[in-house]
This record gives sequence, structure tokens and C-alpha cells, in this order.
Amino acid sequence: MSGVYKMVEIVGTSPVSFAEATKEAVKRAAKTIRHMGWFEVIEERGAIKDGAVAEFQVKLKVGFKLDE
Amino acid sequence: MSGVYKMVEIVGTSPVSFAEATKEAVKRAAKTIRHMGWFEVIEERGAIKDGAVAEFQVKLKVGFKLDE
Amino acid sequence: MSGVYKMVEIVGTSPVSFAEATKEAVKRAAKTIRHMGWFEVIEERGAIKDGAVAEFQVKLKVGFKLDE
Amino acid sequence: MSGVYKMVEIVGTSPVSFAEATKEAVKRAAKTIRHMGWFEVIEERGAIKDGAVAEFQVKLKVGFKLDE
Amino acid sequence: MSGVYKMVEIVGTSPVSFAEATKEAVKRAAKTIRHMGWFEVIEERGAIKDGAVAEFQVKLKVGFKLDE
Amino acid sequence: MSGVYKMVEIVGTSPVSFAEATKEAVKRAAKTIRHMGWFEVIEERGAIKDGAVAEFQVKLKVGFKLDE
Amino acid sequence: MSGVYKMVEIVGTSPVSFAEATKEAVKRAAKTIRHMGWFEVIEERGAIKDGAVAEFQVKLKVGFKLDE
Amino acid sequence: MSGVYKMVEIVGTSPVSFAEATKEAVKRAAKTIRHMGWFEVIEERGAIKDGAVAEFQVKLKVGFKLDE
Amino acid sequence: MSGVYKMVEIVGTSPVSFAEATKEAVKRAAKTIRHMGWFEVIEERGAIKDGAVAEFQVKLKVGFKLDE
Amino acid sequence: MSGVYKMVEIVGTSPVSFAEATKEAVKRAAKTIRHMGWFEVIEERGAIKDGAVAEFQVKLKVGFKLDE
Amino acid sequence: MSGVYKMVEIVGTSPVSFAEATKEAVKRAAKTIRHMGWFEVIEERGAIKDGAVAEFQVKLKVGFKLDE
Amino acid sequence: MSGVYKMVEIVGTSPVSFAEATKEAVKRAAKTIRHMGWFEVIEERGAIKDGAVAEFQVKLKVGFKLDE
Repeated sequence: MSGVYKMVEIVGTSPVSFAEATKEAVKRAAKTIRHMGWFEVIEERGAIKDGAVAEFQVKLKVGFKLDE
Repeated sequence: MSGVYKMVEIVGTSPVSFAEATKEAVKRAAKTIRHMGWFEVIEERGAIKDGAVAEFQVKLKVGFKLDE
Repeated sequence: MSGVYKMVEIVGTSPVSFAEATKEAVKRAAKTIRHMGWFEVIEERGAIKDGAVAEFQVKLKVGFKLDE
Repeated sequence: MSGVYKMVEIVGTSPVSFAEATKEAVKRAAKTIRHMGWFEVIEERGAIKDGAVAEFQVKLKVGFKLDE
Repeated sequence: MSGVYKMVEIVGTSPVSFAEATKEAVKRAAKTIRHMGWFEVIEERGAIKDGAVAEFQVKLKVGFKLDE
Repeated sequence: MSGVYKMVEIVGTSPVSFAEATKEAVKRAAKTIRHMGWFEVIEERGAIKDGAVAEFQVKLKVGFKLDE
Repeated sequence: MSGVYKMVEIVGTSPVSFAEATKEAVKRAAKTIRHMGWFEVIEERGAIKDGAVAEFQVKLKVGFKLDE
Repeated sequence: MSGVYKMVEIVGTSPVSFAEATKEAVKRAAKTIRHMGWFEVIEERGAIKDGAVAEFQVKLKVGFKLDE
Repeated sequence: MSGVYKMVEIVGTSPVSFAEATKEAVKRAAKTIRHMGWFEVIEERGAIKDGAVAEFQVKLKVGFKLDE
Repeated sequence: MSGVYKMVEIVGTSPVSFAEATKEAVKRAAKTIRHMGWFEVIEERGAIKDGAVAEFQVKLKVGFKLDE
Repeated sequence: MSGVYKMVEIVGTSPVSFAEATKEAVKRAAKTIRHMGWFEVIEERGAIKDGAVAEFQVKLKVGFKLDE
Repeated sequence: MSGVYKMVEIVGTSPVSFAEATKEAVKRAAKTIRHMGWFEVIEERGAIKDGAVAEFQVKLKVGFKLDE
């Protein structure tokens, strides 16, 4: 993976699962970041409402290559 | 989120996924704890039987507001 | 769980979810390791292609009993 | 400190400082817990509103002696 | 280990060893908690008096099954 | 907190306290970031001059919602 | 300690103490590994039965020199 | 900051705040250490008496330049 | 170091050493970031090809002062 | 525990147990340090000889009060 | 990187640098492991003799693909 | 390594590499400490000047045997 990469940290949310929250975050980041190559899960949390899980939240670092 | 909150630590289990194990834990906690607002994933483990994943286990901290 | 156990570290991959990646890793390990009893999630990462999650990766420690 | 102790985890909040949030949490815990002896700071976070810190939040473990 | 479990954090003390401090903590917890299944060591500390170890202290998380 | 969030890491400084350093960092970040919702303390350090604390430094992660 | 070394992770168990669990794990590993030189404690846990510690469990990394 | 530095670990206490505890620790260290340049907060704890925070305790690493 | 600072996370690569990978990352970051003052190593990894180290990778946080 | 304290880090060794290694380290430290009040276990390792544990090693931080 | 991977932990040594110690470890591992793809640095230590660094030691996890 | 050891924490600096910074720190420590046996890398950082790495900084713990 020669070159230099940048990491940005984002948080995705989903009512369904940690995997969906991850997908949401990456999809949104793709609107402004090109060349994303990988992600790393930093933290998993969520919201509870009326005694049930209402939202899965995943904090990610996303890595992408910088233009040379 | 003014006020004071308490965290309790629980472990949920599910044969399906980490997300389901999380939901199970929160649903059970709701039987005795009111005002739960959020959870934090502390650890993910699981049981293996006959060479296959038999159970997903998620250790959570759950936060809820204390009455004033 | 009296006796002595060994841990090995493996990484599973799946286009679907962290839970599926976990199952894949354990299924593959079962080809050469007997008596596996539990797993511990060490790290969750993944690959991104064309601005979307292409692969979920889960690093696991798997524990199994050593013959006496 | 012979004997056996229990730790409970609480989160205090304050618009002023981390120290005040700590004091609030301990004061509230004192309503239901006797013999508290010490606290350990686990996490410091806070809320931002209109571009300014609105609340300091301190997550604590509080230790107290169990009756023999 | 299907079902839902709760973890509580306790500190045991002993003038003899970390193992004894662990046993003391679990024995005391058994007075009020049923169905305890396992413990996890979180921290080991101790007190020194007159230039010698006076007390071993072990902080544990103890897990027990919640009734369904 | 449905939607996707971004985290940025900043360091605030103050000659007075960790709380003031936190406020300074958030106030400065507000010049270029809208919709900030929360912060997480990552590290606390400081500078010493002439044998006394000259500056409190707080490293924060700040979270804010991305436009959809 | 010139040369190259390999680490393997094992878990020892004992009804007596963490030290005995450590000895058990190393003794068993010696059946198949030669030239072991050191161990590092990774985790200490245990089993509880009938309200008392039934087993001490120690997770170790063991290092040994590879033949050149 | 060319040269070689030494770190020492100290614990400061204050009935007022973590910032004051930090200042106290550095002030005391200045009696015997010259050329102190920075500190790093390692741990924040405190004492509780009669259901209220009685003391803030801050564990610091302090760095100072060694004479060449 | 009065004022407010921002941290960005980058990954440098080099076929030679961790030090060279660090230099590459900082050199590239200098194209778009002014006033960089320090870096912190977060992670060291690398690529292996044909049984030999093919690339050293260093993940860094880089700090720079924000204009007032 | 008002006042200022210093922490020093030492490693004790024993052929018997972690508890004995701890005692040895504290006993030796007492030759040159007065007013020691507590210790914190940082790391547990050991030496293996001829396929058996030859030595338990415990790395400790020891805290003692500084004269005012 | 679809498929399943295994991680093994090794320690390389070199009198020259951390980078050389890393290369030595990977070169040795290549004698018995095929398809190695990446390494992760876990720990850096070293030996001192006669008041000078005598050896750099790097503990690595090495990942390689398992045959399907 | 029977006996009791002490650890001191030092920071070495070098314009060349992390390995050189390590050597510098150990060489300086050797002026006042005898019987140093090993070092452990705690942290790697550095200074940036004019958009380039100006200095590598390595924080080390150094262990040495205490006279009996």
C-alpha cells in the first residue's frame, strides 16, 4: 500500500445492527472522500428507548490514500 | 443529560449475532431497571460447539438516570 | 474447565456482517483443531471498495483443550 | 482496608467543571450507599450546545465497604 | 451459557496472597448473590505497613445468571 | 442520534484548569465546525515553568453531525 | 537473547492459586515445546461454584527460541 | 527538546479540584527537581468521607531534562 | 504552547524503516498543513511479500496550531 | 491521604509465587524508602527452565509520602 | 482479503535497529510459514549490556492466509 | 534474574531514528545507573519543524538490578 494515507473518524448509526451502522457511516463518508480503502472499529455503543435497543452506533476510523 | 446516572454491566447471549445478544441483554435488564438511556459494548466473546459458533456473547455497560 | 487450553488467533472475513465473519473463521479452524470451546473478539476491521463496505474482518482468539 | 468492598459505576454532570461533576455524582450516590471510601475516574466527556461546552460529565467507580 | 448475566465489581483483601483475597471477596459476595458462575481479575494492589506487605487487594468482576 | 457523525481531535490550553482548556478548545473549534454535539477527553497533560504548572492541556475528540 | 522466538498462548487451571495454574500450563506445554524461556501473564479469571472459588485460570504467553 | 529527559511519577492531593491537586504535586516536586518541563496525567481518583468528596488525587508523570 | 491545536491521523509507508515511513508521512502532510509541531506514533505495522518485509507502515497523529 | 506522594517502579522475583515476589520487592525497597503506603501490580511474568516455571516476577509501583 | 487467516506471534532481535529486528523475525518465520501477508508490532524492548543498547527486540503478530 | 530490580523512565531524542534516540537515552542513563539489564519502549513521538521530522523521541523504562 505504498504512499501516504489519512484516517478520519466517523460514527454510523442504525436501528438494525452494528454491521448496518458501519455501512451507513461508510456510505455517507463516500460523499466527500475518495479512495477509501479500509475501516477499523473503535467503539460500539447504542441508544436505549422504552427498555429496548433503539439504535446501534459504531465509531470507525476510515483510511484513504492521499493524492501524490 | 443533566442529573446523575448509574451504569450496570450485563452479558447477553444469542445463537444469531452480536446485535441480537445485545438486544436480549437490554430486554432482560428492562424488567428491573427503568430510564435506561444508552449502552456501551465492553467485550464480545462466544461459545463454540462441534466446530461451529454456538453462541454470541456481548458484555455491555448500560446507563440509566437516577431519580432525584 | 479443568485442564490446560491453547489459544490460537485467526481472522475471518465476510461480505455480510461481523457475525458471519466470526462463523467463517471458526468453521475453517475446525478443519484442523478439535475440542474448540470458546472465542474472544480481538479486533473488528474491514475493507472498503468503491465507497462501500466490501468486507467485514474479525480477529479472534479461539480456545481449545489440550489432550492430557 | 481489611474486609470486602463493592464498586458501583456512576456518571455525574455539571455545567461548571469535572470536579463539580464528580462531587454531584458522589453526593447523589450517598443517598443510597453508606460507607463510601474512594472513587476512581473512568472517563471524562461532555455535551456541547451552540458551539460551547454545556456540560461536563465524569464517569466514576465508587468503592464502599460491605457489612460483615 | 444461554440467558442473561450480570457482573458486579468487588474488592477482596487478605494478608496472605492474591488467591486468598479472591476467595474472600467471592465468599462475601455469596451472602447476597446466587448463581455466581465466574470471576475476572481487574486489578491487583495492596497496602504496605512498616516496610512490608500488609495486605493483598484484588478487584474482581463477578458474573451471575439472572432469573428469567 | 440517527444520522452520521464525524469526530475531530483538538487540544485546548489554559493557565487555569482542565475545564478551562476544554472550553477554549471547543470555542475555537466552533469557528469552523457547526452542529457539535459532544466531546470526549483523550489525554490531559501540561507545561511546567519555573517549578510550577504553567499550562493545562486537554486533548479532546469532538463529535458533530454531518449534513445528509 | 539473540535469535528469533515464538510466543504461544495457553490457559492453565488450578483449584489452589494463580501460581499453581501457571505451573500447570507451563508443565503441559513442555510436553510439545522445547526451549521455553519465559512467560507473560495476560489474564486472570476463574470459576465459581456453590458460592466459592472453584478454579483459578491464568492465560499466559510463553516464549521459546526457534531453531536456526 | 534535544537531550535526554527523566520522568518521575508523583501523586498530588487537594480538597478543591484535580487542577489544584496537579499544582500541589508539581510545587512539591520543584523542591528537589530542577528543569521540569511538562507533566502527563496518569490517573484521577479521590477520597470520600461522610458521603462527599473529601480529596481529589491526581497521579502525574513529570518530565525534566538531565544535565549533559 | 498556548492556543488551540488540531490533530490529524496519517499513515506513512517506506520499504526501509519505521523512521523513514514517519518522515514520508510528515513530508506529505506538509503539502496541505501548516504549523505542524509534533507527532505521536499510534501503530506500527507492515506488509510481507515473498517471505520478507516489503513495507514498514507507521500510523501517526500530527498536531498543528490553529490560527486564532 | 493529604500531601504529595512519589511512585517508584520495582520488580520482585520468587521461585514460589506472585505473592512472594511482591513481598520480596517491597522488603528490598524498604531498605532505602521510608513511609511506603501502597503498591499496584503492573505486570506479572516469569522465567521457565527445563520445561517448568523457575521464577515468578512481579512489576510493582510503590507509593510513599514525601516529607513536607 | 477474502478467506481465513492465522496470526502467529514472534520476537525478532537485532543489534542494529527495530526495523532490522522486524526483518529478522519475518525472515525466520518464512522458513516454515507460507503466504505471509502482513505484520503488526506488539511490543518493542531490548537488552542493555555495559551501559549501552546491546539488542533491539520486536514482538510481532504475523498474518498469513490459510489454504481453503 | 533472581533479586530485585528497579525501573526508571527516560526519554531519548535523536534527529536520525527511534533506534538512535533509544541509544542516546541509555547512554546518558549509564552515567548514573549501574547494572542496567533491559529497556521497554513506552511511547514514540517526535518534533516537526518546517514541515519535516526534526526529532525522534522515545520514552523508555530501563530496568537495573538493586544491590542486595
